[in-house]
Amino acid sequence: MKYSLKSSLIFLAILIASCSVEKKTDETNRQNETVFPKGEKITSNNFAGTAYLYMMGAKDTTLDASFGNVTFEPKARTNWHSHPGGQVLFITEGEGYYQAKGEPARLLHKGDVVEIPRNVKHWHGAAPDSEFVHIAVSLNTDKGGAVWIGPVTDEEYNQSTK
Amino acid sequence: MKYSLKSSLIFLAILIASCSVEKKTDETNRQNETVFPKGEKITSNNFAGTAYLYMMGAKDTTLDASFGNVTFEPKARTNWHSHPGGQVLFITEGEGYYQAKGEPARLLHKGDVVEIPRNVKHWHGAAPDSEFVHIAVSLNTDKGGAVWIGPVTDEEYNQSTK
Repeated sequence: MKYSLKSSLIFLAILIASCSVEKKTDETNRQNETVFPKGEKITSNNFAGTAYLYMMGAKDTTLDASFGNVTFEPKARTNWHSHPGGQVLFITEGEGYYQAKGEPARLLHKGDVVEIPRNVKHWHGAAPDSEFVHIAVSLNTDKGGAVWIGPVTDEEYNQSTK
Repeated sequence: MKYSLKSSLIFLAILIASCSVEKKTDETNRQNETVFPKGEKITSNNFAGTAYLYMMGAKDTTLDASFGNVTFEPKARTNWHSHPGGQVLFITEGEGYYQAKGEPARLLHKGDVVEIPRNVKHWHGAAPDSEFVHIAVSLNTDKGGAVWIGPVTDEEYNQSTK
């Protein structure tokens, strides 16, 4: 009987360990399940906070489009800007905001899509307490690239995201 | 001692059960982690097999673009077709193929991006043994919608995906 108890306790310990390892592996896999690569840290002054860009194209310039995957750490955001040809955002992870000038900010989650009309002044970025990832597709780029206006101040950001 | 053994065996049983439930929950959560909704079953003759479309836009027609999330069950695929304004595919799940007419099919996985030039005849769809999900962004739609050509025959499909 003593031997049985010892065996069952050893088995128990192994089981606890393996169950815990399995859970850990699942969590690690999920964390690595970002859909597109994170890319390089953005050093442009047109962004505030820490953000990353994985530029995906277009290699075929006859498409008149460009697209990239953008990852914002909490509080990171673009400056105010506009696109002569418009842009579409596909949110793939986290929580963030899109705000058109003069309108309330729109809270965004994974699975949301934002259509940004031509020449509308706006910003997008992460929520105060969440990472935020989206694909950005700039359209009709034969009309020109993004027009950068200026920073979204901490006051504007805090007001819009509270 | 007998009591201890009994206790530890009961505890062991509970632990096995809870570990198993936890794993199951993790798997279920992962399965539900599609980025965009699956939408409605496609009934168009321009597709073979079972596929689903979640049309996302554009509501703003001045963007000259349209975009949707397409889910293909194994073997499902589009017919041969082309886009006057080009198209971009962002692969979010599974395994599938893109083939331009006269070229080898390209095997695609989550995280891949395909630029489809204007007027290039092609098809895309799932691998024989995998579901396949992508966002499709049709560009420069002021040049017209997709031009449908005809089915990718089983022979063509089997040849290209073997």
